[in-house]
Amino acid sequence: MTPPLRACLAPGSIVVIGASENPDKIGGRPLAYLAKFGYRGRVYAVNPKRSETQGFPTFPSIDALPEAPEAAIVAVPGAAAVDAVTQLAAAGVKACVVMSSGFGETASPEGIAGEVRMREVARAAGMRVVGPNSQGLANFGNGAVLSFSSMFIEVPPMDGPVGVVSQSGAMSVVPYCMLRRRGIGVRYAHATGNDCDITVGELAGAVAEDPDLKLLLLYLESIPDPAPLADAARIAHARGLPIVALKSGRTPAGQQAARSHTGALANEDRVVDAFLERNGIWRARDLRELVAATELYLKGWKPAGRRLVAISNSGAVCVMAADAATRAGMPIATLAPGTRAEMAAILPSFATTTNPIDITAALMTNSGLFGAILPAIARDPAADAFVIGIPVAGAAYDVEAFARDTADFAQATGKPVVAAITQDEVAAPFRERGLPVFQTEAEAVSALAQFTAHHERIDAAKPTALVAARAAGPQRMLNEAGSLARLASAGVPVVPHRLCRTADEAAAAFAAIGGPVVVKGCSADVAHKSELGLVRLGLMDTDATRAAFIAMEKTLRDGGFAFDGVLVAAMVRGRRELMVGAHVDPVFGPVVVIGDGGKYVEALPDSQLLLPPFDAADVHRALSRLRVAPLFTGVRGEPPMDLDAFAQAVTAVGALVTAPGSRIASLDVNPVLIGSAGDGCVALDAVVFETTD
Amino acid sequence: MTPPLRACLAPGSIVVIGASENPDKIGGRPLAYLAKFGYRGRVYAVNPKRSETQGFPTFPSIDALPEAPEAAIVAVPGAAAVDAVTQLAAAGVKACVVMSSGFGETASPEGIAGEVRMREVARAAGMRVVGPNSQGLANFGNGAVLSFSSMFIEVPPMDGPVGVVSQSGAMSVVPYCMLRRRGIGVRYAHATGNDCDITVGELAGAVAEDPDLKLLLLYLESIPDPAPLADAARIAHARGLPIVALKSGRTPAGQQAARSHTGALANEDRVVDAFLERNGIWRARDLRELVAATELYLKGWKPAGRRLVAISNSGAVCVMAADAATRAGMPIATLAPGTRAEMAAILPSFATTTNPIDITAALMTNSGLFGAILPAIARDPAADAFVIGIPVAGAAYDVEAFARDTADFAQATGKPVVAAITQDEVAAPFRERGLPVFQTEAEAVSALAQFTAHHERIDAAKPTALVAARAAGPQRMLNEAGSLARLASAGVPVVPHRLCRTADEAAAAFAAIGGPVVVKGCSADVAHKSELGLVRLGLMDTDATRAAFIAMEKTLRDGGFAFDGVLVAAMVRGRRELMVGAHVDPVFGPVVVIGDGGKYVEALPDSQLLLPPFDAADVHRALSRLRVAPLFTGVRGEPPMDLDAFAQAVTAVGALVTAPGSRIASLDVNPVLIGSAGDGCVALDAVVFETTD
Repeated sequence: MTPPLRACLAPGSIVVIGASENPDKIGGRPLAYLAKFGYRGRVYAVNPKRSETQGFPTFPSIDALPEAPEAAIVAVPGAAAVDAVTQLAAAGVKACVVMSSGFGETASPEGIAGEVRMREVARAAGMRVVGPNSQGLANFGNGAVLSFSSMFIEVPPMDGPVGVVSQSGAMSVVPYCMLRRRGIGVRYAHATGNDCDITVGELAGAVAEDPDLKLLLLYLESIPDPAPLADAARIAHARGLPIVALKSGRTPAGQQAARSHTGALANEDRVVDAFLERNGIWRARDLRELVAATELYLKGWKPAGRRLVAISNSGAVCVMAADAATRAGMPIATLAPGTRAEMAAILPSFATTTNPIDITAALMTNSGLFGAILPAIARDPAADAFVIGIPVAGAAYDVEAFARDTADFAQATGKPVVAAITQDEVAAPFRERGLPVFQTEAEAVSALAQFTAHHERIDAAKPTALVAARAAGPQRMLNEAGSLARLASAGVPVVPHRLCRTADEAAAAFAAIGGPVVVKGCSADVAHKSELGLVRLGLMDTDATRAAFIAMEKTLRDGGFAFDGVLVAAMVRGRRELMVGAHVDPVFGPVVVIGDGGKYVEALPDSQLLLPPFDAADVHRALSRLRVAPLFTGVRGEPPMDLDAFAQAVTAVGALVTAPGSRIASLDVNPVLIGSAGDGCVALDAVVFETTD
Repeated sequence: MTPPLRACLAPGSIVVIGASENPDKIGGRPLAYLAKFGYRGRVYAVNPKRSETQGFPTFPSIDALPEAPEAAIVAVPGAAAVDAVTQLAAAGVKACVVMSSGFGETASPEGIAGEVRMREVARAAGMRVVGPNSQGLANFGNGAVLSFSSMFIEVPPMDGPVGVVSQSGAMSVVPYCMLRRRGIGVRYAHATGNDCDITVGELAGAVAEDPDLKLLLLYLESIPDPAPLADAARIAHARGLPIVALKSGRTPAGQQAARSHTGALANEDRVVDAFLERNGIWRARDLRELVAATELYLKGWKPAGRRLVAISNSGAVCVMAADAATRAGMPIATLAPGTRAEMAAILPSFATTTNPIDITAALMTNSGLFGAILPAIARDPAADAFVIGIPVAGAAYDVEAFARDTADFAQATGKPVVAAITQDEVAAPFRERGLPVFQTEAEAVSALAQFTAHHERIDAAKPTALVAARAAGPQRMLNEAGSLARLASAGVPVVPHRLCRTADEAAAAFAAIGGPVVVKGCSADVAHKSELGLVRLGLMDTDATRAAFIAMEKTLRDGGFAFDGVLVAAMVRGRRELMVGAHVDPVFGPVVVIGDGGKYVEALPDSQLLLPPFDAADVHRALSRLRVAPLFTGVRGEPPMDLDAFAQAVTAVGALVTAPGSRIASLDVNPVLIGSAGDGCVALDAVVFETTD
């Protein structure tokens, strides 16, 4: 960790610029928090009108400070903030948190210029900046609460194993509030604001080095540079710290809102998905999901699989848990006959000993049933995770025994165990024993499924560096022949074809290729040939080929399009039309898209995104997620398709677009005709765009 | 309402059979509840060992009672319960609630027989039975709490506008618990148990007649007979009472669990979906969704549309609300320039006056901003619903003013307004003013979306009677010619074709139809022709047709299949292969399925279900929900397809399968080739199964 980042997390000394005696002012609240939350470093205030502020020594200017503090808070507005940053940098301060707003988030030229100036003067002096427009940083591990959030007045802090790093001020403290209400301690609640210098990603990387942390939560509205976030993920992955991220602006409406309020550049959402997945980061759908599984993460369980056992005193909960498990992709485990026999010897005859296990309302008259069957289940190797549903209990039940038996069971299995309990009084003894409790079985199963799937994602993560993004610039389209040649030279199989400049050449091509053939007009000016009648399929003889040539040359010349020739290509048989495309994302670099192909790829999209570098196994995984995936293995007696050949073609495309010096701006190969296993695949048509500068 | 149902809801007198002095016993708790919750009718107990039970007069036998009570509770086990029901029926009791278990839910022959016997003796005498295995009925409007649920001890009741009717005991009280915790009053918490006589549907119909009710919640595990539920929906629909139902057993695993614990027959889940939709009932995905939007229903709002406005002091909440709205199918409303100008005059320059409206943290220093902009928004006709997000506030803010301003705003617009507030203290004044509050914007938007979509569903509901289910029986398959003939006679356009018994007839058919033709072997023994080489496409002359005839006759005869002839049919061009199928659901009667057609309808399903009676508009609505729907209007310059012709064909199929005396057990018409608008559609292949008895 660099000294400036250390100064953000654990400064030895802090100065507040624009300090106020009023703890409800932005320049006053951090002082109050530093006093209240036990910060033990040196604290200074700067205010030309005071000699003491909230008990802290106060100086008229930064020059007058007795030392260069490690960290500074800037709480003065506009130009004064830029001046303060300049002086702090000159004084040798390591990091400063600029709370002042009115900069980049306003999208005004002066605001943006002020923000750029702060970064530049800071960087030139080796100082780093959090903000501007930052609500501040809060570390409850050491009391370094450089924040003006009112949330820490409303909801008392408690140090703990969770860290929150957020661009948004509100989203740094709302997860804090939700977790604190559940009794969970939160060490960090950091808001980075406009991210003009230190970004969420970079700060997350510093936080991830804290060995006490067991869960890191992120809120992001835009990812202008994925590298620091990937670094943070690598650090977290190396030490087994799970990261859950809420990246908002998923939808066009959300991106529009993000643009309005921060001027942030929108990221292509499924590239974000792929990036987070590759780095082992779970992407929460919303705020609820961001914090839903926290208790499970804090237990430190390592789920071995997804097979679920559900146990309840309500048959309805059993049914609903099974529905929820199916929905969440968790199979209901099949218990061994011996386990069932052991349970049958204990439970009443009308109970169910298949999983889900319905103890029935008999639990009301015999609270021991629960503890009696759990050991049998614990010994069964068929299950990976458990949900205990007790929708109704109370005074008539020995709830303490249920909680104790469940805790013993969790201890004995070492596997994830969660409870679904609606009544607070029944939930309390479970919580006291450290068992995660949810109100409903669906929420319990869904948290368990997230936790399990996240661990699978962590195990499969490849926190490798992305291929760098390239600057956008002027582009030119290659014609079909040129596009196919580019692909062929990269190792992608393309349809046998000849580019013909005369009708005689076309006739000769027919003779050489053998009928039937496809004839297509070739022009770097025409991307959509069919609409102009520039595609003729299934021509059976020389005359037809010659006639097609003549017609297409006329069409192109009459239309004022470049006439690059006419392509005569073999008619190839195959099983399914797929597609592979690629483009260069301005933030994440080259990306490759594969999917079902043909005429309707835009109208009926079925595609998956691959982030280079990737290998054939990644392509196979992406293929298995397509809607058309069931066809690949062969249905209705058909043989499987040649996915290996397709995967090889896709990795060739990946290599082509990521090669050093590659000028490929985008490409679209559609269709790629795939044959049965062993028959390969072949690109029938392609359009490549290259940058020209 | 019949007298027995009135006796369930508002009995003038009640007897408990198997009464106990111990209020924690099944036979004791109802007596305690009747005393505690203010029941004002006459209460008797039957127990041969006592003369008084919990203060209520107690008699040795049913015979000895001074009158025939209107309602009875049976809390004695096994055969004694059947005896009690027999005697109660003989005594003239109107309705009895059998709490005893060990009957149909055990799936044992004796259990099932006992249950059947109870129903029979009751019905013969005009008495009706709730249960057996029922946790009981609870009416907090009049204190008629004939229930042994412990929940009413744990969570004190309060009468209110919500009713819960559930097969499961737990699911009758868990929604109660969740609502009571939110301060909402619940009048009914009824559990019907095994539904041997009075079902959830029938009881729901009785409850729906209560004019005080504003929301009816149902939990169902199986629907053995949809008619009473449809009746309940009709009653509720007529008086504007919304019904939300949780029907579990959606997935194979859930259905398996339901079978294990109640022996219930599984319903085909998407038929349930269609049935509930047609009847205006919202289907909740899980327990959380069952109760999530309750506060909105209780407000009695009538949403006019889906256009949403989001307002927050956090830009992040604005972004997340926009994402959530898009996900939930609510467009972000475009506010009028005048509205924006009014807001711009009030809000700071860095605030956002496009929707979502970001007031920014400036709200902290000026609590009046909120109330200042709301009137402008209220005057804008562009919005149908509102979400107010205040993720962070507290002592520094005038939270009372926010709540008051929001309540005034809701009053002024008369439109749905919900708040998303994480901090309890901030939420409290909103709740006090009757505003629905959710913890997160995603939950707020999702409840609003459900509420809005449910009102659309209610407006579109057609609570018409279903076509009766028919008994399953032996079936026979018609060959292709017979199947096409059946469809043609029903008015479905079929491909021009001839069934030929000789090669000469086939040659003549070619001449008459004109080439190219399709030739297909025809046999009532062969459902899958392609696999046997019994389909030849694109034959261009008489000789090829004749040869195909000879080959197919040989294939069928060699294979030992009936040789019904060879079909020679025209090759028809069209735009897309669709399909229409029908089968007879054992519970819901005939159902029709439409979808994308072709070879892979099972592997890549894209279909929608229609419940007869339906009309062309219903078919169009179903078509619009298909994945392939975007193609229907024409993409990439194509003309639209002839959906009217297809809808007409589907209504013809609907009429065919629902005609009185119809013997159609199932049919599968695939493909139905659809042409461009005006070109019609035509069935190319079909298989019809008929019942033979």
